[in-house]
Amino acid sequence: MTFSQLLSEAIRKKGNPVLVGLDPRWESLPTACRLDNVADAFERFCTAIIDIVAPLVPAVKPQAAFFEQYGPDGMIALRNVIRYAKQKGLLVIFDGKRNDIGSTAEAYAAGILGTESAWGADALTVSPYLGDDSIEPFVKTAVERNAGIFVLVKTSNVGGKMLQDLEVDGKPIYRRVAEYVEQLAQQTSGSVGAVVGATWAEQLTELRQVMPSAPLLVPGYGAQGGTAQDVAKAFYPDGTGALINNSRGIIFAHTKEPFKSRFGEAHWQDATEAATKQMIGELHSEIG
Amino acid sequence: MTFSQLLSEAIRKKGNPVLVGLDPRWESLPTACRLDNVADAFERFCTAIIDIVAPLVPAVKPQAAFFEQYGPDGMIALRNVIRYAKQKGLLVIFDGKRNDIGSTAEAYAAGILGTESAWGADALTVSPYLGDDSIEPFVKTAVERNAGIFVLVKTSNVGGKMLQDLEVDGKPIYRRVAEYVEQLAQQTSGSVGAVVGATWAEQLTELRQVMPSAPLLVPGYGAQGGTAQDVAKAFYPDGTGALINNSRGIIFAHTKEPFKSRFGEAHWQDATEAATKQMIGELHSEIG
Repeated sequence: MTFSQLLSEAIRKKGNPVLVGLDPRWESLPTACRLDNVADAFERFCTAIIDIVAPLVPAVKPQAAFFEQYGPDGMIALRNVIRYAKQKGLLVIFDGKRNDIGSTAEAYAAGILGTESAWGADALTVSPYLGDDSIEPFVKTAVERNAGIFVLVKTSNVGGKMLQDLEVDGKPIYRRVAEYVEQLAQQTSGSVGAVVGATWAEQLTELRQVMPSAPLLVPGYGAQGGTAQDVAKAFYPDGTGALINNSRGIIFAHTKEPFKSRFGEAHWQDATEAATKQMIGELHSEIG
Repeated sequence: MTFSQLLSEAIRKKGNPVLVGLDPRWESLPTACRLDNVADAFERFCTAIIDIVAPLVPAVKPQAAFFEQYGPDGMIALRNVIRYAKQKGLLVIFDGKRNDIGSTAEAYAAGILGTESAWGADALTVSPYLGDDSIEPFVKTAVERNAGIFVLVKTSNVGGKMLQDLEVDGKPIYRRVAEYVEQLAQQTSGSVGAVVGATWAEQLTELRQVMPSAPLLVPGYGAQGGTAQDVAKAFYPDGTGALINNSRGIIFAHTKEPFKSRFGEAHWQDATEAATKQMIGELHSEIG
């Protein structure tokens, strides 16, 4: 099965498009997960999160930066977390925003994508400043391995405007990148998708029209301000084709109201489960 | 000392601006370095390269992709190679082209930059598609730790044109990014620099004028076609302020003429030494 088919099937099977972001931060970890070694703590915490969310959602997205911050130990934890998520039947999006020229991009793609690779992820986020010949090696490897890539198009942060919203002949840069992604999505039956922030509801609607074939990874839900209404137009007509990411709002639910008061740190897993179910409910009531 | 001062001092001390790119590839390794485990082989090969070039050049640039390709083992090798290069007195540029929003960018910066960090690099390459608020956390950490960042401005590959050469109000994107980098370079006394490819001699000259304060990392020398004449305008008036990268042309010199015939694989270290000295000579005769 192609990545696009795997994704649609996973979304249908779980009945929702929630992508849980695995962004471990020492200062927000529940006390029970604070092992002596930070990398070990991250692994324990993330595998516990996976235990909670695996029955509920189709996919998780480990953020490489938080693991890489702790050196090789952190990278061992990342590899183990990816493996554990795969064992639990989840799709894994490696959020690395990798980018480089030709043969170097090949090395990133070869290492990260596919079940036989060193990292074993189903998909990877990719940054496009280096242009088409830097994206192609990722596309080629993704297709060969039934994996996917998500190219940054319109990111959730305010500063994304600096380059992405510049207009060339009346058309913003993000739209040009989107048109390129749509071409690749059509050529690869949806192995190539795009990152479009939930914080830009209007552009998200526009970009789904520009990219009818591309799977979308939509960050910015919850903590960054995106709502179920904002992401309602992100999907294919059949309700698949988009993953809506929530990181802190789910994994650190125990630190925020109403979950903080209701569960407390001692029951942090229950807080995470409740936050996941709440997000699923919000999306269902908006999207149906 | 700030990164800019460290860089100038290192260039002056060695009397040249050569940056040796550590891009290990299994298929090009000398037989003597082909250990059973690829990551161990990369470590042996790169430390042997460091032994050869440390007396000759100011800095090395490990390319993270080639290590990451082999999973956590590869990342252990990368960490050891960085440590070894530091022990030998070299500046280390971590070529990761990292990029992300706010607190995630902070995690990359905290992990990679500075002698007390997990990776211990002196500088990091950064990709700018996510805009100013994604660059600022890298800048802040770099300044705090007397480290540096090099922002991609005009990359050496042909496809870089796709976004970088688009003109907004008559000014290409790469020039807008360059103006932003120059502001940061001025605010940080040169802790922020730019990547500008040797393959675009005209733009390199233009961009040094746009960025008089920014250190430049110039890839594309040798294998990609850049010459000493092409990079002659990259420097500050005092001859410092730019690093000229050569990866394959130096580390795999034994696989290419004239070094292949002259030394053969058995004397691959001599080939690397000769290629390094040849590049230093080429730059001296062009730049003085």
